Amino acid sequence: MRAITTVPPGGGVKLSQVNIESKNGLKIKTYRTGICGTDKEIAAGRLAFVRPELGSSLILGHEAVGIVTESDENSGFKEGDIVVPMVRRPGKCRMCRLGRQDFCEDGDFVEAGIRGKNGFMRDEFVEDPRFLVKVNDPSILDIAVLTEPMKNVMKMKEIFQFMRMRIPWYCDDSTLSCKNLYVFGTGTEGLLISTVFKSLGINVVEVNRHPLGENVMDYLDSNKIDYLDTSSETLGRKVKDQPMDAAIDAVGAMDVLKEITDNIRNNGIAIMFGTSGQLPSSTYEVLENIVDRNVVVVGSVDGAKAHYAEAIRFMETQGKAMQMERIITGKYEPEDLKIFSEKEKLEIKKVIAWS
Amino acid sequence: MRAITTVPPGGGVKLSQVNIESKNGLKIKTYRTGICGTDKEIAAGRLAFVRPELGSSLILGHEAVGIVTESDENSGFKEGDIVVPMVRRPGKCRMCRLGRQDFCEDGDFVEAGIRGKNGFMRDEFVEDPRFLVKVNDPSILDIAVLTEPMKNVMKMKEIFQFMRMRIPWYCDDSTLSCKNLYVFGTGTEGLLISTVFKSLGINVVEVNRHPLGENVMDYLDSNKIDYLDTSSETLGRKVKDQPMDAAIDAVGAMDVLKEITDNIRNNGIAIMFGTSGQLPSSTYEVLENIVDRNVVVVGSVDGAKAHYAEAIRFMETQGKAMQMERIITGKYEPEDLKIFSEKEKLEIKKVIAWS
Amino acid sequence: MRAITTVPPGGGVKLSQVNIESKNGLKIKTYRTGICGTDKEIAAGRLAFVRPELGSSLILGHEAVGIVTESDENSGFKEGDIVVPMVRRPGKCRMCRLGRQDFCEDGDFVEAGIRGKNGFMRDEFVEDPRFLVKVNDPSILDIAVLTEPMKNVMKMKEIFQFMRMRIPWYCDDSTLSCKNLYVFGTGTEGLLISTVFKSLGINVVEVNRHPLGENVMDYLDSNKIDYLDTSSETLGRKVKDQPMDAAIDAVGAMDVLKEITDNIRNNGIAIMFGTSGQLPSSTYEVLENIVDRNVVVVGSVDGAKAHYAEAIRFMETQGKAMQMERIITGKYEPEDLKIFSEKEKLEIKKVIAWS
Amino acid sequence: MRAITTVPPGGGVKLSQVNIESKNGLKIKTYRTGICGTDKEIAAGRLAFVRPELGSSLILGHEAVGIVTESDENSGFKEGDIVVPMVRRPGKCRMCRLGRQDFCEDGDFVEAGIRGKNGFMRDEFVEDPRFLVKVNDPSILDIAVLTEPMKNVMKMKEIFQFMRMRIPWYCDDSTLSCKNLYVFGTGTEGLLISTVFKSLGINVVEVNRHPLGENVMDYLDSNKIDYLDTSSETLGRKVKDQPMDAAIDAVGAMDVLKEITDNIRNNGIAIMFGTSGQLPSSTYEVLENIVDRNVVVVGSVDGAKAHYAEAIRFMETQGKAMQMERIITGKYEPEDLKIFSEKEKLEIKKVIAWS
Repeated sequence: MRAITTVPPGGGVKLSQVNIESKNGLKIKTYRTGICGTDKEIAAGRLAFVRPELGSSLILGHEAVGIVTESDENSGFKEGDIVVPMVRRPGKCRMCRLGRQDFCEDGDFVEAGIRGKNGFMRDEFVEDPRFLVKVNDPSILDIAVLTEPMKNVMKMKEIFQFMRMRIPWYCDDSTLSCKNLYVFGTGTEGLLISTVFKSLGINVVEVNRHPLGENVMDYLDSNKIDYLDTSSETLGRKVKDQPMDAAIDAVGAMDVLKEITDNIRNNGIAIMFGTSGQLPSSTYEVLENIVDRNVVVVGSVDGAKAHYAEAIRFMETQGKAMQMERIITGKYEPEDLKIFSEKEKLEIKKVIAWS
Repeated sequence: MRAITTVPPGGGVKLSQVNIESKNGLKIKTYRTGICGTDKEIAAGRLAFVRPELGSSLILGHEAVGIVTESDENSGFKEGDIVVPMVRRPGKCRMCRLGRQDFCEDGDFVEAGIRGKNGFMRDEFVEDPRFLVKVNDPSILDIAVLTEPMKNVMKMKEIFQFMRMRIPWYCDDSTLSCKNLYVFGTGTEGLLISTVFKSLGINVVEVNRHPLGENVMDYLDSNKIDYLDTSSETLGRKVKDQPMDAAIDAVGAMDVLKEITDNIRNNGIAIMFGTSGQLPSSTYEVLENIVDRNVVVVGSVDGAKAHYAEAIRFMETQGKAMQMERIITGKYEPEDLKIFSEKEKLEIKKVIAWS
Repeated sequence: MRAITTVPPGGGVKLSQVNIESKNGLKIKTYRTGICGTDKEIAAGRLAFVRPELGSSLILGHEAVGIVTESDENSGFKEGDIVVPMVRRPGKCRMCRLGRQDFCEDGDFVEAGIRGKNGFMRDEFVEDPRFLVKVNDPSILDIAVLTEPMKNVMKMKEIFQFMRMRIPWYCDDSTLSCKNLYVFGTGTEGLLISTVFKSLGINVVEVNRHPLGENVMDYLDSNKIDYLDTSSETLGRKVKDQPMDAAIDAVGAMDVLKEITDNIRNNGIAIMFGTSGQLPSSTYEVLENIVDRNVVVVGSVDGAKAHYAEAIRFMETQGKAMQMERIITGKYEPEDLKIFSEKEKLEIKKVIAWS
Repeated sequence: MRAITTVPPGGGVKLSQVNIESKNGLKIKTYRTGICGTDKEIAAGRLAFVRPELGSSLILGHEAVGIVTESDENSGFKEGDIVVPMVRRPGKCRMCRLGRQDFCEDGDFVEAGIRGKNGFMRDEFVEDPRFLVKVNDPSILDIAVLTEPMKNVMKMKEIFQFMRMRIPWYCDDSTLSCKNLYVFGTGTEGLLISTVFKSLGINVVEVNRHPLGENVMDYLDSNKIDYLDTSSETLGRKVKDQPMDAAIDAVGAMDVLKEITDNIRNNGIAIMFGTSGQLPSSTYEVLENIVDRNVVVVGSVDGAKAHYAEAIRFMETQGKAMQMERIITGKYEPEDLKIFSEKEKLEIKKVIAWS
């Protein structure tokens, strides 16, 4: 079968024929895989933690949706089922044993398409049913590839709801309608954060440093999400009218943390999700460690199976009304390897069609 | 205008012309009002806490949806907006001031259609915009009358999610897919509980003491909610296959509390919502006090504005897919006062159409 | 060595010479064992769940303090260390593996001196160091036998602090000084509850149905704990002056639950700890199940190692000032077996001196 | 009477006779006031937020203990009572009204001796009894001046216990005995943090960048608190043996945040308390805002009345055993104004004796 592989740590991407011996599990025909910043960084050879499962090359791809082609009756799945595979697989630590490998204590896990386990950018794969999450509504087949990035958002929501319990963090009418959440970053992750948090009844402001593409603006408008281009209006100015009660960062730069802490209100909740290895080394590690280790500021990384399921349910119930299909701005063939290095105008999320 | 009134404490219901001087507020044309067990109890003169707003008679009706006919520009509402009015209005206690009159500390509140405030069973009413919750999607106009009973369920969900935090109350894969929730009572409230909790990914078993109506069974089937008729299979038998991890009661009988505590698993969460004044006095007060006072076992009463908003959002996003329109089994004219005393075959929720 | 044994389910107590083969572990010389209601019930043959470790007889005793006589260097203990052994030993369930066998999910545990494991009413025992908790301050040697009953109270405190987080459950000055906790039962457990909760700054009222012994009244007075004898003043009368914000039951009767729910304020927290098998069967099971299964009303049973350690620290830091030695009202020889059946005037806690 | 005053924003300190008109309240004779880094910064004119109550000069002093000399019977205090006055006084915001001005939402509060309200460095003061916290045990009179800095620690403990609830943040035996907390800073605040957290059963490592004074080492040794001088052993080396599970900073430098995030384990909890205005401006504001605004990383500032009371109780029950009197290393007369600018060898906390 075809597969897109890389050779860590050097990077590069190649489409080639591979033979992988099937382990026990269900056979899944890949339908779509998404590519994200991490994939591009891997391809560029910039991520030190990338490692192959066996040998020297790694099959890329951690965002995927596929269709079961061979199952067994006790697996809970049957042929034709639409499924999303999980990325991170548990190690032996306390949290992994509780099913919360997203809070892994010792880093002893593998992640499909990233470290120690082949990913899903291939025609088909065999998977342990414990790591498959079912999509019930076939009408979301084309956006289900967003499950993986969205599960991160569902974990952020869990963290947000927890942190709100410190004090009565709500308005005098019990809702969040008087509160403003600023979301930094207008890529896929930023838009998914805005989408999910908007549904909590909080006002959401998307922030970026340059004018937004028309497609992003349309998406935000149709979902009543506000936005701010800091190249035309400063954050400091904006927060005078709409105070920043909470912030979520999907950029991963130390200066965003500074912008947040400069502007956030008392008792604010800041969830740090983004990491971006290209920033000034003097201050950057602070942020990366906060994020990668779930350190409370609050760093958030990965999500649990419950979050995959919640993401799928969100798309099934609200994906259409919120026009989430607009987030996917390009569909490519496996041969189109230039998508790993080039960025389209108005690009949000690019996906590869395998079948 | 027309209004359905009662004279507490004696009860009775009457449709008559009333003149009510308009206070400040928005003018709302009533679209639908629902009737529930409490309305029937009031009509039968069985609830001691019912009291008029002024004079000797009280306009009934606490479940309602209406349409704004006169607004002012600063209210946040405009003509034509679909709105649901809140039932309980805050007093002066600490929790009321926080917008959580559902946790009122001293009982010093009024409830529209129940105690100290006229209800919504009339052609129109004038309302303070602080106590109106907006429906954004007009396609749920006909089921929006379910907002009021459903807001109770959203509060139960808040309680459930809180109680789960005592210990890692989830399965080894982080989801709730291995857990079973038993819901007692198959009236409107019971079905709404099942509907909402099913969406959390927990297995739900509806329990009743007699065969379910075909319409209820269809509703449950289509939403993959299990059910148990204890006249044909005992609860004790059922829990052998599907252990009871949690329970929610919408019946309000002491023997249900006994059935729950007899069968619930260790670390179980039991939320008591129902109250039913007709039960043996020897043990009943226990339960009524637990419920009415939010005493932790966990009693749950009423819900906050945030829960109204959440209920509306649930219906907007999932009401159609879950076929919630099936819960409304009868639509009547204001003149049809017999609906306060008679019970239809297959009745779940009856509503009165005002316009 | 000498040991006090019983033969379940029939009961009875006998002091005899036993030989028990030493397993791996530290050797402990027993200093004191306490006897509590459970021991008396076992002796009377009234508890169905009592079972031997091996053969047909069980060594009694779950409240103990001893001194290490043989250790090994890696155990963390050395000869002469004062230690309290834990009662409940973990099974294989999720909570047991987390060290929280007090929240055991499946009941698959053993309890020293109660079910499936010999207790500490013997001259010496061999123990796995994982189940020993160290006493650092030798000056509490004589009251350290209270660690076991007090660890239950520390778990109740954990539950209380958790439940308080639902809403801002504190006074307008942030303290608990405006809140009243009613504690039912004036035996050892009741007094320990009052002692510990008083230290949180909440007002505590001890409740009993008959006049208190002078010694109990002195103890309460010196610790500024209020009390109520319901044979001379009704609870309903008392709560008019001092509303019941919270309650903890150490009696275990359904009518106490009724008294609590009759009188507790809105948003009240009631922790049920006591069980008493002799009550009317019609309502009793409700309570027993609530308690034994940690069902939220909130039942509380047992405590974790952290609670043993917290109990010891409490006694080390506050035991003397609070005059906790007064709780131990009788010291007996192992031969004095009548203490299992007779009750002394002014008795609170009786202990057996083994060395 | 005598008072130590400053003239903000220029600073300086002067002892002079002042006449202050008595408002309603209790009359308190000052016994001790402590001086801390903030007082020194005010004296040096380095804190921009300092402002007088009236006119142009401010009486300094926010750490104090005094004795009631005139009371009224309904105040809850009587002549001779030992009392600690609170620093921050509530404004009108939601959290202030709940008694949690330590979580003030809008900054509209005053702080005695710091901003908008005269402090306690004077012979006597008149105080609203709502802002007085009683010391019950006269034997702690000399250390009760530590209540104010210690109440900050009690708030940190509240935050720590809250944050631990995200996941089962404890060892496999339910205790914290396998966890290590690193405390940065060996001044008064650092030592109080170590003292209080040690009592939770967690291992504590005090960290400083230079050799510790003998007196500090003795204090730590006697309380079994470990320490690290990073001028002789690196943090990176130390955490190999004792991983950093949690950290609390009382230094207030961006590079400490970096050291923490460089070394803390997954799921770590870092509480930021210190602020130190003298650090590189490029990164410093980040930290100051995190701290001053209670932003979750987790910044912690001030404490509530409940924390004052808890601090007093801690000293009453454990102050003597933990030898907390050692923290006070110098007692001075009001005339000794050089203590605002000079630092003694082995200095920890200096106090001024007023009577």
